[in-house]
Amino acid sequence: MTAIAPISNIYSASTQAIDWQAIAKDFIAIVGDRYVVRTREELLAYECDGLTSYKQQPAIVVLPLTTEEVSAVVKVCASYKVAFVARGSGTGLSGGALPLPDSVLIVTARMKKILEVDFENQRVVVQPGVINNWVTQAVSGAGFYYAPDPSSQIICSIGGNVAENSGGVHCLKYGVTTNHVLGAKIVLPDGSIKDIGSKIPESPGYDLTGIFVGSEGTLGIATEVTLKILKSAESIQVLLADFTTVEAAGSTVSDVISAGIIPGGMEIMDNMSINAVEDTVATNCYPRDAASILLIEIDGLEIEVAESAKRVEEICYKNGARNVATATDPEQRLRLWKGRKAAFAAMGRLSPDYYVQDGVIPRTKLTYVLQEIEKLSEQYGYHVANVFHAGDGNLHPLILYNNAEAGALETVEELGGEILKLCVRVGGSISGEHGIGADKKCYMPEMFSETDLETMRWVRDVFDPQGIANPTKILPTPRTCGEGAKPNHDAKYKLVERF
Amino acid sequence: MTAIAPISNIYSASTQAIDWQAIAKDFIAIVGDRYVVRTREELLAYECDGLTSYKQQPAIVVLPLTTEEVSAVVKVCASYKVAFVARGSGTGLSGGALPLPDSVLIVTARMKKILEVDFENQRVVVQPGVINNWVTQAVSGAGFYYAPDPSSQIICSIGGNVAENSGGVHCLKYGVTTNHVLGAKIVLPDGSIKDIGSKIPESPGYDLTGIFVGSEGTLGIATEVTLKILKSAESIQVLLADFTTVEAAGSTVSDVISAGIIPGGMEIMDNMSINAVEDTVATNCYPRDAASILLIEIDGLEIEVAESAKRVEEICYKNGARNVATATDPEQRLRLWKGRKAAFAAMGRLSPDYYVQDGVIPRTKLTYVLQEIEKLSEQYGYHVANVFHAGDGNLHPLILYNNAEAGALETVEELGGEILKLCVRVGGSISGEHGIGADKKCYMPEMFSETDLETMRWVRDVFDPQGIANPTKILPTPRTCGEGAKPNHDAKYKLVERF
Repeated sequence: MTAIAPISNIYSASTQAIDWQAIAKDFIAIVGDRYVVRTREELLAYECDGLTSYKQQPAIVVLPLTTEEVSAVVKVCASYKVAFVARGSGTGLSGGALPLPDSVLIVTARMKKILEVDFENQRVVVQPGVINNWVTQAVSGAGFYYAPDPSSQIICSIGGNVAENSGGVHCLKYGVTTNHVLGAKIVLPDGSIKDIGSKIPESPGYDLTGIFVGSEGTLGIATEVTLKILKSAESIQVLLADFTTVEAAGSTVSDVISAGIIPGGMEIMDNMSINAVEDTVATNCYPRDAASILLIEIDGLEIEVAESAKRVEEICYKNGARNVATATDPEQRLRLWKGRKAAFAAMGRLSPDYYVQDGVIPRTKLTYVLQEIEKLSEQYGYHVANVFHAGDGNLHPLILYNNAEAGALETVEELGGEILKLCVRVGGSISGEHGIGADKKCYMPEMFSETDLETMRWVRDVFDPQGIANPTKILPTPRTCGEGAKPNHDAKYKLVERF
Repeated sequence: MTAIAPISNIYSASTQAIDWQAIAKDFIAIVGDRYVVRTREELLAYECDGLTSYKQQPAIVVLPLTTEEVSAVVKVCASYKVAFVARGSGTGLSGGALPLPDSVLIVTARMKKILEVDFENQRVVVQPGVINNWVTQAVSGAGFYYAPDPSSQIICSIGGNVAENSGGVHCLKYGVTTNHVLGAKIVLPDGSIKDIGSKIPESPGYDLTGIFVGSEGTLGIATEVTLKILKSAESIQVLLADFTTVEAAGSTVSDVISAGIIPGGMEIMDNMSINAVEDTVATNCYPRDAASILLIEIDGLEIEVAESAKRVEEICYKNGARNVATATDPEQRLRLWKGRKAAFAAMGRLSPDYYVQDGVIPRTKLTYVLQEIEKLSEQYGYHVANVFHAGDGNLHPLILYNNAEAGALETVEELGGEILKLCVRVGGSISGEHGIGADKKCYMPEMFSETDLETMRWVRDVFDPQGIANPTKILPTPRTCGEGAKPNHDAKYKLVERF
């Protein structure tokens, strides 16, 4: 490796005095006074993303409208050597868009244009503030859709999806965001504008688009993104099977895949999640006494879907399903999905707070991992509800707790960490689709060796030699993850009166 | 960008005196005398890869057996600061494995072990010298296969596939090599051993596997590769449609995709290719008077395949097909594919030499591009036969020439270059699956801006600060691509007696 210092690794906020007044003036000259947020009250809206247990006010928020404005804003940050954090809709669950003390938050919410729709070549070009669901809405009339569908798809932005390499229930068959991004216009941490990838899938040279997607704002900010769109399936069928054990649902998933059928999505919810959902949105189709339900969506040609559904139903019964309901018309399908889509929100009924984890395991380890999670749950004394993208082994354990209890959050985070370690131990991953962000960087060494992490740091430094683009995220640092280091939420409400 | 010099960009062979005797001695201590090739006669076998118009003997060839041996060999190269080039089976078509003057050629042909087969998790771990086709053979008994299938699949190696991000006829539906590599053990250009990616698809942090696949030996050498295997389709059907124009075959391809059907592969061959093939392998099923034939392979559940095939047949006739033949049993399917698989080799019947190009265009530009290629063919006075992966717009124009004619190769290369520029002009790419290597690096600026290339150089330098891993490949340099620079084959048979 080269001999330059890994600067991104030694970022330390605000040891120097920063002239925020001058910076604000520069920003106002670029985007106008209205789009430079700097009062404490207004900044409140930006102090966290979807990971609400971590809070930190940025020094200043800027809302640029164009690539050129983003570039100019970043150039100001670079010239003052202040850190910047990019934020889309702020729905991320790993604190990727969590502001840093003395940082500039660059919000892409005003960049909401769909710039190009090219049905012939099955691609669209969008600005980063475009909402995930808008892409499908824009192209569905012509029979197309955009495949990645995070639960937050009606509110999360494409820019955030690119940063976190977001997934969704249909990733089993269609892949995550990186499989659907052809190229992008990005603003590098020095403010320069660069095109990566291209408008077609085949792009020679190093796969810079691949490395950018999922880089959580540490390599720059995407200001235009070229996305693949897919032809909508002719037919979609949803099956809901219920089981007396969670294991039976798990082995059904393995058997479906082994049979050579790749459903669009396969989702398992356990008893606690089922009841939370029924209490909240009352689907009236998730049996409250089931140990688990398995939702399977099959898409394709009508004749193929009918045949596959028949086989999947047989496999469900063979694995001990008590009942298998099917839905073909859109309204019925929506009803079956409704509970799953509302699962996270429904946890609010069961508990004042919940902490959602995102780990991946090989499908074959499901039974063992669920038993171990149950043991950890008992050991720590916190209920864990399980909702997961079962097809690709992506677990979402939801740990229920009360933030008002002193020390509860810290314990719950420790429990979440134990679950992640468990995932790695069985050959899995510490993140399936939520990213690493601020939340899970200290667990990166569970999965990667020091030399792996070092390589990542060097790549980061190539893009960001000053270490100002979302520093301290993704990669662990001795200061934040070493002996005695405390989670970020200790720094809650560190407020400095600047304006 | 950082301030270190882009070393990979200033590699210049053999200005210093290299102590090859000492290097050979070190290599012998690592792999044994038998596996250090250094006589001029034996070196002959290694002077080119599949791009036979470029030839260069390496100084020395080493054939390591294990990761540790590769590491030790690379460490010797690094300590002497001599360039090394990795080579698998040497079937690449862009000169990626073309030796450099005064370089060490590290051949992975002895590393042929399949290390792990994991059906439950649908993955295998192989050494780089394993032949592409062996992977499918190893897992087909259990109903699985490895999807990427270059024409050379019975001889090309997985290591070479990873280096060049190889494709094949089934990439339309299943993607190229990068979509099937989960992780790898690699030896970096300093000789250190590193694991990238993981054994499951979801790996957080920067996508180092993505950047490594397709890096053509410039970032290190893969010594173990974890590949995804797929469940074999229940049913496969091949259709052969023939048309009186090439355009009709092209519009059929677009209509099939628009109908929401993604065949495993769609291949077009033009009249010249059809006749070359019939002259050579006599399939007796490619009509010699057809302007083009279109081969379509559909895979999936039996019922789905039958339905899709019916629709595809209708679309073919709607686009003016004279006839559509179908094959369902393996023998019949093989017969229909036989001509396509033999297409490149068959060109030897038509012409003493041929130069195969590899460009990509948006499907919608097919008619225009074929007309322009025809014009270029007339202008330069060389026949161009066309064989292509039509589904993903990947053209393989074959330029027929006679290398014995003085200046013919240079003219043909110029014609090939014009075709690449044409591809870029219509929004395509200069490589679909053969890589850039030595052959096409000077066309990289047609597709990428100087700042794009600069970013690639910085990434390269992070992995290889000494600039010794396959230097001068992929990225253009002023010395090799600047004003008055001549193609590498001018350096043909630059021989130095060293041993």
